[in-house]
Amino acid sequence: MFYPKSHAVIGASANVRKFGGRFLGTLLSFGYGGKLYAVNPRESQVLGLETYARVGDIPEPVDFASIAVPARAVPEVVEECLSKGIKAAQILSAGFTEAGEEGQRLEREVSRIAARGIRIIGPNCFGIYCPAGGLTILPGENLPKESGPVGFISQSGGYAIRVPRRASGWGIRFSKVISYGNACDVNECDLVEYLYQDPETRVIIGYLEGVKDGPRFFKLLQEVCQTKPVILWKGGFTQGGARAAHSHTASLSGDEAIWDAVFTQSGAIRVDSLEELLDTTIAFLHLPPHRGRKVCVVGGGGGIGVAAADACERMGLSVPLFSDELQEKLASIVPPAGASVRNPVDVGGPFPPPPMLKAVLEAVLNEGVVDTVIVSELELARITDLMRDRTQMPGYSSGEVAEVPVEMKKRFGKPVIMVLPVEAIGADALQFEGARRNTRDYFLSQGLPVYLTLERAVKALANVIGYYERRDAISSSKSRAVN
Amino acid sequence: MFYPKSHAVIGASANVRKFGGRFLGTLLSFGYGGKLYAVNPRESQVLGLETYARVGDIPEPVDFASIAVPARAVPEVVEECLSKGIKAAQILSAGFTEAGEEGQRLEREVSRIAARGIRIIGPNCFGIYCPAGGLTILPGENLPKESGPVGFISQSGGYAIRVPRRASGWGIRFSKVISYGNACDVNECDLVEYLYQDPETRVIIGYLEGVKDGPRFFKLLQEVCQTKPVILWKGGFTQGGARAAHSHTASLSGDEAIWDAVFTQSGAIRVDSLEELLDTTIAFLHLPPHRGRKVCVVGGGGGIGVAAADACERMGLSVPLFSDELQEKLASIVPPAGASVRNPVDVGGPFPPPPMLKAVLEAVLNEGVVDTVIVSELELARITDLMRDRTQMPGYSSGEVAEVPVEMKKRFGKPVIMVLPVEAIGADALQFEGARRNTRDYFLSQGLPVYLTLERAVKALANVIGYYERRDAISSSKSRAVN
Repeated sequence: MFYPKSHAVIGASANVRKFGGRFLGTLLSFGYGGKLYAVNPRESQVLGLETYARVGDIPEPVDFASIAVPARAVPEVVEECLSKGIKAAQILSAGFTEAGEEGQRLEREVSRIAARGIRIIGPNCFGIYCPAGGLTILPGENLPKESGPVGFISQSGGYAIRVPRRASGWGIRFSKVISYGNACDVNECDLVEYLYQDPETRVIIGYLEGVKDGPRFFKLLQEVCQTKPVILWKGGFTQGGARAAHSHTASLSGDEAIWDAVFTQSGAIRVDSLEELLDTTIAFLHLPPHRGRKVCVVGGGGGIGVAAADACERMGLSVPLFSDELQEKLASIVPPAGASVRNPVDVGGPFPPPPMLKAVLEAVLNEGVVDTVIVSELELARITDLMRDRTQMPGYSSGEVAEVPVEMKKRFGKPVIMVLPVEAIGADALQFEGARRNTRDYFLSQGLPVYLTLERAVKALANVIGYYERRDAISSSKSRAVN
Repeated sequence: MFYPKSHAVIGASANVRKFGGRFLGTLLSFGYGGKLYAVNPRESQVLGLETYARVGDIPEPVDFASIAVPARAVPEVVEECLSKGIKAAQILSAGFTEAGEEGQRLEREVSRIAARGIRIIGPNCFGIYCPAGGLTILPGENLPKESGPVGFISQSGGYAIRVPRRASGWGIRFSKVISYGNACDVNECDLVEYLYQDPETRVIIGYLEGVKDGPRFFKLLQEVCQTKPVILWKGGFTQGGARAAHSHTASLSGDEAIWDAVFTQSGAIRVDSLEELLDTTIAFLHLPPHRGRKVCVVGGGGGIGVAAADACERMGLSVPLFSDELQEKLASIVPPAGASVRNPVDVGGPFPPPPMLKAVLEAVLNEGVVDTVIVSELELARITDLMRDRTQMPGYSSGEVAEVPVEMKKRFGKPVIMVLPVEAIGADALQFEGARRNTRDYFLSQGLPVYLTLERAVKALANVIGYYERRDAISSSKSRAVN
């Protein structure tokens, strides 16, 4: 893997209100390990670094450049980077095709220079976050330093920072995040192809507004999706969305029906919001290749069972009625009255004693009739000493209950999905929220996906199952075509 | 308003693992203001209260009873309550129609006794939460003591506690919450009629699995919805959901198409999850009677604008293109390059200086072309001293920025909706989450609805607009029918 060992920030400034000022500061606080050069003809020192008036003045070779100067000055700067032998640059500046005719002219000029031997990311982007290479996006100074299996390409700079920031709270780590803006040179196809080859990347996700080369993108997706899932949030399907996308990244959004065909026939996974993008990523990271649609839901209360069954069946999953034998067995475990054992299984309340929860999960998983178990809205995080004292409930620690689904998942090798909503109220709500997050982190560290709501859990699971089903179908139709 | 001044808990126990034990403890910690009597023939003292073997042994008159004895003993206990002159009782015990034939027989017996002069809530319920009367549901010892404008009826005990608990974190306060379970006497029609008459209740919400008297319920909804919105989450529309509903409250779920007609023709608002129920309630509490579908979205970043426009138009709202004059005006306010001013308006980043945000909102609201403004995902809660020091951003306090939308909403009298996602990461994430919640509470206290995601905000807004539109249509078709 090649990472830039030297990096010029062109348009670096001591003024943090300027893009180039913020960006250099961000790189420094993130801890870029290579050599950094600040380029600015009007400031002699920037954040403790000596400046160079032009990139050509830097006495050593430079691998990579970040460009944050006004749009009209960008072509000249890119030309200088090319002369300096710089292999690639990211252009953070905006004001190109998205801004009108003059911008369009400037962007075409940059593309022409790029074609002569320098690869360009952007313009109108926030750069690359690559923890292994010490690179971070604007303003990603506090993004995690560890790498992970998710590669993310984003036409939006805002989402390029927002997605990894929010994702990192859910234990998701990234190989590379690339904000690529107007894509005047390196485009979505190049990036997906790169992440497809990248051994560090196991799941590819993207926020797109339009594509430069539709046919190539479709073929590429079809190939990539045979080995790596590609989850795409495509913005701009509505009239207003398309108009906004055009102002934003000069994209032509394309027809929703065509895109739907692309998703169906390539096997890429369509998501429609930031939340669904993250939820589905979590599911791919923690679930095995997964095809079965039969789900058991274990919850504390009959209403939750009704909602769970509705949510599952609306998403095309099934909540099969258990056999009489299994029902009898479960009935001997859960509280006698008012608790359903038909599937969903009601453990009687949100605070099941660990031995009861364990016996329920064992009975269900032993029977082998379902493909996935969802444990929904048990108040695992609330079973703390504090809570126990207050309600005078008999004592189990949150750890003891939380270990049960983890142990069952490991013993039976079947996916167990947890739903842990934000629920605590009152003066110590934030303390409980801390406990909830710790419980969430524990499950995630043990390979159990965690969701804030049942509906989101079910949607993410259905997205994973749909992917493997389509992958099988596409693969077998291809082999039929060959034979 | 009549509140019970004396209350017998029948089946009260010192054992908190029993329903009656937990319930009495819950009432005591909540702080019931009237006289409490514990009835239990096998314990002489329960939680410091002297016990009576039977309700008939209580020397004073009793207004209300909570019954938590095994199902088979319930009819006799209800008979005793009737003889004692108790006017109403709630039966917390389960094991009735939802549990099979014997349970069905017991429930019919209770109904027959009820018809002779005692009103029954339940069986198979968690009781009534009524802060003004000092009553609370199981296990609602820490629910708010203040009353509010929302009345909630729930066939599920679990949701009867979960909804007010979660809602209270969003500033929602309740007049009454009634968990009514199998509805052997008082049913959903009686309860909606009661809340319709109740001067304390302004918005009626419900979780239903089935109804006892469909035609009466439909007519009632049609009448009530002319003055009070009724938001219903109807569980059990899918096959699995219907089966679960039948195990849970012995409900027959009914056909989704029929229910859809009920919603359309009565004006009641259909929601499909706990989150949507709360989101829509927040919207009704804070938005004025509201019919216009034109929205302006103000966000920090072009991608957010695309997502916002997509979300609005998918929900049937419009994000109209601004006039050239307004665009020019906005362009003179927001950062020069890369920021759209066509609507959605991009203020350039998630940390807009307060004067800029104010000028944008003023320009948009002055023009008068939109009915609602959504301020989406600006990092209002993160603009704290801590954040400012770390990023060396120029100083504005979170208070200064947060005041802007509040001031604009008051000055122009147009709804302003805030989207404040959970986003902070790292070691101080919980501290930021605290700041976010304070910011949320501030907006809610000022009458600005707050949502966790843009999609949820838009759905809730569309639900409110749809209600007022249908109400108008139903009202005018009725007056046509009369003329």
